Amino acid sequence: MILSDRMREIALVNSAGHILSWDQETYLPSGSADYRSEQLAYLATHAHKLATSDDFLKALADAEQTDDGSDPVRTANLREIRRESDRSVKIPTDLVARESTAQSAGHHAWIAARKASDFSIFAPHLEKLVDFAAEKADLWGFVNEPYDALLEGFERGTSTAAIAELFETLRKDLAPLSAQAVAKSPPSELPPGPYPVEIQQTFNAIVAAEIGFDFHTGRIDTTAHPFCTTLGPRDVRLTTRYMETDFTSLLFGVMHEAGHGMYEQGLPAADFGMPSGSSVSLGIHESQSRLWENQVGRSPEFWEKFYPVAQKHFQQLRGFPLEKFLRHIQRTEFSPIRVEADEATYDLHIILRFRIERMLLNREITIAQVPSTWNDLFRESFGFTPPDDAQGCLQDIHWSMGGIGYFPTYTLGNINAAQLFKAATAVPEISAATAKADYAPLLAWLRENIHRHGGALDPTALMEQATGRPPSTEAYLKHLKSRYL
Amino acid sequence: MILSDRMREIALVNSAGHILSWDQETYLPSGSADYRSEQLAYLATHAHKLATSDDFLKALADAEQTDDGSDPVRTANLREIRRESDRSVKIPTDLVARESTAQSAGHHAWIAARKASDFSIFAPHLEKLVDFAAEKADLWGFVNEPYDALLEGFERGTSTAAIAELFETLRKDLAPLSAQAVAKSPPSELPPGPYPVEIQQTFNAIVAAEIGFDFHTGRIDTTAHPFCTTLGPRDVRLTTRYMETDFTSLLFGVMHEAGHGMYEQGLPAADFGMPSGSSVSLGIHESQSRLWENQVGRSPEFWEKFYPVAQKHFQQLRGFPLEKFLRHIQRTEFSPIRVEADEATYDLHIILRFRIERMLLNREITIAQVPSTWNDLFRESFGFTPPDDAQGCLQDIHWSMGGIGYFPTYTLGNINAAQLFKAATAVPEISAATAKADYAPLLAWLRENIHRHGGALDPTALMEQATGRPPSTEAYLKHLKSRYL
Repeated sequence: MILSDRMREIALVNSAGHILSWDQETYLPSGSADYRSEQLAYLATHAHKLATSDDFLKALADAEQTDDGSDPVRTANLREIRRESDRSVKIPTDLVARESTAQSAGHHAWIAARKASDFSIFAPHLEKLVDFAAEKADLWGFVNEPYDALLEGFERGTSTAAIAELFETLRKDLAPLSAQAVAKSPPSELPPGPYPVEIQQTFNAIVAAEIGFDFHTGRIDTTAHPFCTTLGPRDVRLTTRYMETDFTSLLFGVMHEAGHGMYEQGLPAADFGMPSGSSVSLGIHESQSRLWENQVGRSPEFWEKFYPVAQKHFQQLRGFPLEKFLRHIQRTEFSPIRVEADEATYDLHIILRFRIERMLLNREITIAQVPSTWNDLFRESFGFTPPDDAQGCLQDIHWSMGGIGYFPTYTLGNINAAQLFKAATAVPEISAATAKADYAPLLAWLRENIHRHGGALDPTALMEQATGRPPSTEAYLKHLKSRYL
Repeated sequence: MILSDRMREIALVNSAGHILSWDQETYLPSGSADYRSEQLAYLATHAHKLATSDDFLKALADAEQTDDGSDPVRTANLREIRRESDRSVKIPTDLVARESTAQSAGHHAWIAARKASDFSIFAPHLEKLVDFAAEKADLWGFVNEPYDALLEGFERGTSTAAIAELFETLRKDLAPLSAQAVAKSPPSELPPGPYPVEIQQTFNAIVAAEIGFDFHTGRIDTTAHPFCTTLGPRDVRLTTRYMETDFTSLLFGVMHEAGHGMYEQGLPAADFGMPSGSSVSLGIHESQSRLWENQVGRSPEFWEKFYPVAQKHFQQLRGFPLEKFLRHIQRTEFSPIRVEADEATYDLHIILRFRIERMLLNREITIAQVPSTWNDLFRESFGFTPPDDAQGCLQDIHWSMGGIGYFPTYTLGNINAAQLFKAATAVPEISAATAKADYAPLLAWLRENIHRHGGALDPTALMEQATGRPPSTEAYLKHLKSRYL
């Protein structure tokens, strides 16, 4: 088999695994979890075996040898397959299987721990998962610290030191900015619920379709923790949850996931499973979700058009003026939960997680110290302590899935989103359309400048090509200041 | 790897495939079908490769050589694995892949053909699928006719000639019985709908749980064509559709699928993937679904208890007497659609399909002759011609999935169901409980006499052990006469 056939085979196995994971989160009966873990571990192991087999490595070497550089996409694909392959072969297959099993167990323990707000339920699993991360970092190798090796898996071409510096720049401005924003945020209110789930489903689907999510090749289901996953080149699944007291919270969640989904739907379908048909990095992925959620979704222009639609669906909004509604969706406050945090305070949550993950990997703190470290750092940034661990160090799913090194990409996404939105709306036609909440030209710009490239360019190069400069905090801070101060 | 580990691996791959198929029928977006076919073909091919590899055959031979016969379940497993293996190795892997692709394409073409009631859309696909069936029958080999080889895959240990004889015995009594039943069926009515879908969902779930379906390890979703599938040792999925004009139609559908599901839930979970942890045959599987749907679900005893519950849920039933309701659910008529047929006429539909399949495989008719042959045979049994092919030869999903040889097992199921119900209710405690619509003792009897054996015994031997005699039409005809004449 030639390399492209082998890549196709691996994509078939991996995407089958995504279907199993999607079902695990959406519809799996409560008593059926154990065997699902085995099925997922089998597919993960099988994909890893395929990607590290001698036959695969030979097909890759052959393809590299015959590449004459005439097709830049082909060359980029070979470069990225090689990069991934060099990482994969360092991880023994049995480690993949053991880690997959530990992640499934960790995920279930995390659910129980969060429910009971009892860190001790999750601690032994977290210990294992951090050990797996450290073991993998050692196997991959790193120049400065183990976290570098993990980060590379989510955001290639960056380093812990670079992130730390970028985050420090951001934090210096964001700390006073967020405090000021919170202080001047006027009291806000929304007419009381219930906002019925069925009506939220209808309204959210209208909004997702209007901004460009294609329901012909995608859908929205219900989960505890919203996510977006791709089950095939034309099969993108969003999930959300519902809150009857405030429909806006999960509407922004759906716009966020739809942003991820539109990126996936904009990738070259013919290259599915190849780097050029895959998202380039989580920092770019998150830029797409945050752009639609925040740059678009929380803008007055968006609501000029969609507030009347919302009023048609939710009767309690009918006498409630747009101006007060905007105040509600642009309110800022210091709250313990990341996923409920507003734009002006969100990155403080990320910076905290980045610091803790780095300390864990550098063995500067033990697992047992996670709750107290979390609470100390939280108090430092937010001025109070989370009421319990469920609203503290147990709130996020990521560690339970082995996703250590993932969090920084959220803030990279915020930074990229602002920079991309600024560059796109510098085009007069896009700016004019966006002012009327017509988002087709904006999506077309993103398709052209981001989506269609897949993973052929490095994230930094992609941002430079799209916006004229590498990612910087400038556009983002300017956006936050203009919206919140 | 030893044989049991290899069987475990194959079960992981096959059950992963079931998850993909389940999603294909329940939630797959309309534009996502193509790649799903590729994913399914890959998993089917991979499982076939595993089951026909030299390593597998060696592990099987090793296990056979060391079997001392001291554990009858182990010996039965080896016998059945060998039987399956001897069949599998005769089918080249590329045929499995090509057939899987043809089935996916055939399935989509069938949906379009049925919608348009245009046989020509489906004909080229059916041609291919019949050719695949004939090719496989040739590869498997047979003594009398190709259909024998297909039948063996669904109902081991029987023959086309034996089925033809059994069906002829049945038909001789059933033809006058059904005509009489239809003639004497009093006009029936049900208070007009709508019976809201959400309330049907609630009521159907209550009934399914009451008869013993375990929602902790199972669920019900919505599809165009109801089915039951097993995604893991403790993960059984039923599907149904809804009709707002008459809630009973799909309630019986749910009881039917729950019967299949309870069988699957009663198989030894520790033996998942082994013959002893798998259903023995479709004729036994169908006996479980038909027993709950018809022997139980259409009985007056069942409704003595559940009609008040139905009245609580569907307000239009409140003034409608039980006696009239029973007349509605026990009405008989000659109708073109198998899945809507009542007990007294159902098997005439099956006998027709069996005859057509046999003719197709014996090349006595061409694909182009299927609609006219269908209509001729239908008129012969039912006295009228189906109004169109959508309600004639295009009504069933089976051929589109390559399931030629499957239909006879429905009538075997009816025969077995009556015989099992008679044997179970010969136990006084079961009969007393069933008279009060308490079905726990009946389910326990089925668990003990059918479910726990998995596929260790042949279907005929299992029926003999459970009821004291091999399958015969006696109990079934007696049941039909007593209920419908």
